[in-house]
Amino acid sequence: MSHLKNDTFLRALMRQPVDYTPVWLMRQAGRYLPEYCETRKRAGSFLDLCKNRHLACEVTLQPLARYNLDAAILFSDILTVPDAMGLGLYFAEGEGPRFERPLKDEWEIRDLTAPDPNVHLRYVMDAVSEIRRALDNSVPLIGFSGSPWTLACYMVEGGGSDDYRKVKTMAYDRPDLMHRILEVTTQAVTDYLNAQIESGAQAVMIFDSWGGALSHAAYREFSLDYMQRIVAGLKREHHGQRIPNIVFTKGGGQWLESIANIGCDAIGLDWTTDLGEARKRVGDRVALQGNFDPMALFANAESVAKEARRVLDSFGPSNDTGGHVFNLGHGINQFTPPENVRVLVDTVHEHSRRK
Amino acid sequence: MSHLKNDTFLRALMRQPVDYTPVWLMRQAGRYLPEYCETRKRAGSFLDLCKNRHLACEVTLQPLARYNLDAAILFSDILTVPDAMGLGLYFAEGEGPRFERPLKDEWEIRDLTAPDPNVHLRYVMDAVSEIRRALDNSVPLIGFSGSPWTLACYMVEGGGSDDYRKVKTMAYDRPDLMHRILEVTTQAVTDYLNAQIESGAQAVMIFDSWGGALSHAAYREFSLDYMQRIVAGLKREHHGQRIPNIVFTKGGGQWLESIANIGCDAIGLDWTTDLGEARKRVGDRVALQGNFDPMALFANAESVAKEARRVLDSFGPSNDTGGHVFNLGHGINQFTPPENVRVLVDTVHEHSRRK
Repeated sequence: MSHLKNDTFLRALMRQPVDYTPVWLMRQAGRYLPEYCETRKRAGSFLDLCKNRHLACEVTLQPLARYNLDAAILFSDILTVPDAMGLGLYFAEGEGPRFERPLKDEWEIRDLTAPDPNVHLRYVMDAVSEIRRALDNSVPLIGFSGSPWTLACYMVEGGGSDDYRKVKTMAYDRPDLMHRILEVTTQAVTDYLNAQIESGAQAVMIFDSWGGALSHAAYREFSLDYMQRIVAGLKREHHGQRIPNIVFTKGGGQWLESIANIGCDAIGLDWTTDLGEARKRVGDRVALQGNFDPMALFANAESVAKEARRVLDSFGPSNDTGGHVFNLGHGINQFTPPENVRVLVDTVHEHSRRK
Repeated sequence: MSHLKNDTFLRALMRQPVDYTPVWLMRQAGRYLPEYCETRKRAGSFLDLCKNRHLACEVTLQPLARYNLDAAILFSDILTVPDAMGLGLYFAEGEGPRFERPLKDEWEIRDLTAPDPNVHLRYVMDAVSEIRRALDNSVPLIGFSGSPWTLACYMVEGGGSDDYRKVKTMAYDRPDLMHRILEVTTQAVTDYLNAQIESGAQAVMIFDSWGGALSHAAYREFSLDYMQRIVAGLKREHHGQRIPNIVFTKGGGQWLESIANIGCDAIGLDWTTDLGEARKRVGDRVALQGNFDPMALFANAESVAKEARRVLDSFGPSNDTGGHVFNLGHGINQFTPPENVRVLVDTVHEHSRRK
C-alpha cells in the first residue's frame, strides 16, 4: 500500500492500525456543491455526465479539493448494469431514476443476459482509469454497483417505489422468475466490479438500497445469498494489492450477524444502528462504515460537531485496530450547507486523533 | 374477561394460555373492501367518515362481518390529536394526511396546549361507545393514537416526508423546541387514550410510524422516552378489566430490548424482524404482535397460506403462554384482493390450533 500517500481508508477497512478515523461521504460529489452544479450544466443530463470520462473525473475530484476526505468514489449511478442490459435508464427531472423498458413479461426475463462490462460499460472503465491517473495516488478510489435485489427492484418496478408491490408480488408469487433475474444480475455485477478493479478501483462497495424492505427470510433468499455469491467471485487482489469490499444494506441493521458471515471485509450501516452494539455483534470479523444521519448536517455547526463526536464515541477506540470508516448513513442531501461538511470532516479527524 | 365471547386477543396480549393465535389486521376497515368504499362515498371525506359516529361504527364492523377476526379497531386517524390542537388536518386526494397550519414559529410552539379529549375529541369518544354497543361483547375493541414523535413529524413537516428534514433539523438544531412539542403532545395523547379507555376501549395501541427514521440515541430522546411517559400514565384497569397496551415503532426492530423496558404489555413488529429472534431478545417481558408483509397478500392463495405458516412457525409454539397476536407489519394495502385476507385469517387460526 506504500504507493498511496494516504491509505488510511484501506487500512481501516482491513482492520489495521490507523492514526485517525478515515472519512468519506456517500454522494460526496453531488448537487450540494455549486461547482458540481456548474459541471452538470455543461454536461447536459445526469447520464451524460456519467458517460463523459473527463467530466465524471472532474466531479469525482471536486469534494477532495474542498475537504480532507480520505477516499474518492467513482462518479456513476447504481443502475448502470440494467441500463447496459437494454432497459433504458433515464432520470426524469426531480423524480429519480426510471427505466424506459421495465421487465414485464416472462420472455423478457428469460432473455436477460449479463453484459460484457468492457464493452457495454466501457465508459465506466474509462472513467475509473482517468480518475486513478488524476488522483495520482493521493487517496484510494472506490468502485461500486447496486446489489442484485436493488437492481431487480428498479428493473421490475420501473423506478423507485413506496411499497415495492410489483417486485414483491413477483418474489412471493413467482419466485422462479425472481431468481432468474437475480442470477443474471449477480453474474453481471460480479463481472462489472471485477472490471472496475482491473481498471483501477482500489476498493468496491455494493449498495443494497432496498434490501431493508424485505423480511429477514426474504432478505436472505433474494438479497443476501446473491451478494454472498458476488463477494465470493470478486478479485481479492490486483497488482499485489488487497481490494477490500463493503456491503451496505440500508435498513439491514437487524441482520448484521448474517451479513458479516458472507465473507465481506466491511459492512455499511445507516444511522439507526448503534455502532458500539454493532461492533459487539460482529466482533472482529468485519470493519464497519457509517453512520451519521445526513439530516444532522442541517443543524448549527456546534451541533454538527457534537453529533460527529457522538458517532465516533459510539464506536469506541479504533486507532489500534482500525475497523471504523466514518461516513453518512445515506447519501448527502442536495440542500446540505457545504460549510457544515467541512465541520464534519475536520471534527472526525480531530476527535479521532485525540481518542 | 368472562363477559367477552372471544377474549383470545386480550389473553394473548397478557401472555395467558390461548387455544389459537388471535389475528387482526392494521387498517382492516379500509379501501380494499368494496363495502367500505360505499360507506365512504356516502360520508363525503375521510375525516367526515371519522367524525360520524354511526358511519365510523359501520366501517369498523365491516371486516368482522367478512372474516373471523379476533379484535375490532376504532375507525379513526392517528392525527386526530394535532387536529384538535388547531392545526387543521385534511386529506388531499391520493396524497395522505396534511396540516393546514403546520408549526413554523417559536410562538406557535410555546402556545401549544393539550386539548380536552372529552370536548375537542368528543366525536372519537362517541364512536368508541357506539362501536362497543354494536360489538355486543363479541370481540374486544382497540383504541389508538399516534406517538408524540410521529405526531410531531406531521406537525412540523405539514405532511408526510421522505427525509424528515424539517423535523430533524429542529431536533438537532433546537432540541428545546422539539421537546416542548413532545411534552404537550405526550400529555394530550395520554389524556386521549385514557378517555378512549373510559369510553370503552379494551386495549390501546400507540402507532410510532416514524420512530424508525431516527438514530438509536435520537429515538430514545425524542420518541421512546415520551412513549414511556404515556404508558406510565395510562389507566391499567377499567371496570375491573385489565387494559393492555401495545407500542409499535415501525422500523424499530433493532431497539426491542429498550422498548420492552418501558413497561408496555406488547410490542408491534414490522416484517423485517424475525419473531423467534425477537422473542429471545425480549424474553417473557412482553407479548409480540405482527408481522406478515402486507405485500405478500398479492401472491396466489397457496403462497399467502405458506407465508402465514412461516410467520407463525417463526414465533414458535405459543398456545400455552399466549404472547403472539398475528397481524400485518404495516397497514393493509388498498389494492389487496379481499379473498386473500380470508385465506390469511383462516390459515392463522387453523395452523395455530394444530401447532
